[in-house]
Amino acid sequence: MSAAFADRLIEAVRAKATPLCAGVDPFADKIPALFGDLRADPAAVLLKFGTSIVDVAAKHAAVLKPQLGLFEQFGEMGYAAARMLCEYAVSAGMIVILDAKRGDIGTTAEGYARATLGAKPGFNADCVTVNPYMGKDTLAPFIALAKQSGKGVAVLVRTSNPGAGDFQDLQVGGAPVWRRVAEMLAPEVAELTGASGWSGLMAVAGATYPEEARTLREAMPRALFLVPGYGAQGASAADAVAGFIAGPQGLEGGVVNSSRGITYPQAAQEARTMSDWRAAIDAAMTAAASELRAACAR
Amino acid sequence: MSAAFADRLIEAVRAKATPLCAGVDPFADKIPALFGDLRADPAAVLLKFGTSIVDVAAKHAAVLKPQLGLFEQFGEMGYAAARMLCEYAVSAGMIVILDAKRGDIGTTAEGYARATLGAKPGFNADCVTVNPYMGKDTLAPFIALAKQSGKGVAVLVRTSNPGAGDFQDLQVGGAPVWRRVAEMLAPEVAELTGASGWSGLMAVAGATYPEEARTLREAMPRALFLVPGYGAQGASAADAVAGFIAGPQGLEGGVVNSSRGITYPQAAQEARTMSDWRAAIDAAMTAAASELRAACAR
Repeated sequence: MSAAFADRLIEAVRAKATPLCAGVDPFADKIPALFGDLRADPAAVLLKFGTSIVDVAAKHAAVLKPQLGLFEQFGEMGYAAARMLCEYAVSAGMIVILDAKRGDIGTTAEGYARATLGAKPGFNADCVTVNPYMGKDTLAPFIALAKQSGKGVAVLVRTSNPGAGDFQDLQVGGAPVWRRVAEMLAPEVAELTGASGWSGLMAVAGATYPEEARTLREAMPRALFLVPGYGAQGASAADAVAGFIAGPQGLEGGVVNSSRGITYPQAAQEARTMSDWRAAIDAAMTAAASELRAACAR
Repeated sequence: MSAAFADRLIEAVRAKATPLCAGVDPFADKIPALFGDLRADPAAVLLKFGTSIVDVAAKHAAVLKPQLGLFEQFGEMGYAAARMLCEYAVSAGMIVILDAKRGDIGTTAEGYARATLGAKPGFNADCVTVNPYMGKDTLAPFIALAKQSGKGVAVLVRTSNPGAGDFQDLQVGGAPVWRRVAEMLAPEVAELTGASGWSGLMAVAGATYPEEARTLREAMPRALFLVPGYGAQGASAADAVAGFIAGPQGLEGGVVNSSRGITYPQAAQEARTMSDWRAAIDAAMTAAASELRAACAR
């Protein structure tokens, strides 16, 4: 068995001294023309855009999070580009959390587990986001494969979108559904806990709800958090690390994703050369990494 | 705007006089060697297996339901084969419900909606299964695209797997979560209701829980049901149509999926020629279609 995913992740975050996770969200209307004609050759443009982000991000962030749905809108070419991007990021020393939000039962869940965490023809991602609505048996194949191969599973618990409360906030005996989900995942958290004391059963914990991140930390003391919603989605760095706890170097306990803020800053959108584009996203990533570093040093 | 999906679906089911939906679940260890070497050329084998099922299923069932996760385990080649299979099924006159169980927010949800319901490079499916856990805003892009293009959205409400109850059964003020989900979907059901009175906002309603299918019908009187769990998963034909109501030709109100029972019957697994294989699945589909026809004639 490889080193536990949680140990690899927390070590990489400590080495970078920032919990920044770089999200790759290929918006058709935002990828600069510098990368080529997206309509004519989506696979090449998506891959060039993604790998160019990795070339800069590997200096600033321990983790890359490709958003699979935005690749899939380009069909099988987009799907293939996402897989090749994961390969490239791993070879550049980054940890890959594939944001696929899969969730199904039995044999189909096994199929998705192999597709995302498994070796080629799978994505061979280090971790994948999974939706728990269908029940804990939907998680089992992901957890089994993760345990066996030193990988992780990030379960949607409390998301950061405007409608997150519709079903997640329904009250169950005085606590919201998301809190019950968190509590019921205790055995899975234990199963993926590494020598660091952290677990590779990650919880997606929306940064737009910092109070809830603290509550979630009580319910899942060992789960690493994947925190979306920082930057463009409105949450501050302090909000984003609200669920973190004191570690050897400051606050720790997961990664904080930024996508639009660091990959589509205004200066990058206006860049006329690749070198200007690189400088623009380098500056945005430096700023985000430092802001999160400062928030963790409090 | 094209004809409403619900109207197309109910008309096709009435024409076939059976609610049978043919599931295509490509299990690596079950596809007969007759179709070629799956490891050597997954795309060709998957496509031949799927289209061969369509050639027979088009006679017996109005609807084809490819299980995307089992295609994705073969990487981008599997993903491409699933898309081409959808194209083939539509050209053979079948309605395609793509079982993708996607669920994400905002722009990513838009990406998944285009990927599944959108025209090439999308799957151009007639309907797609969607997971509601992240909230109603995750459904909005699917519903908008469905409404605009005469398509449908099948929302996971009450699934049929052993762990379905873990989160779906949590009690919210005297009713389970799945019932609250059903009730909260009323505006979306109304939005996709066609001239037939049925809505293309389908509800996934597990056949292994017939009592609950009746309760779900009360909560969602106009939603067409996508019923999994019939056949190999253990539910009888009578259980499978428990949520159906009286229509012009007998009970109606959705489709009932069978995958393993009609695509991997013992005789098909033992077939030595394509002609024997076709005869075996033709017999299994004839039996399933008749059994469901009889259950609807009660």
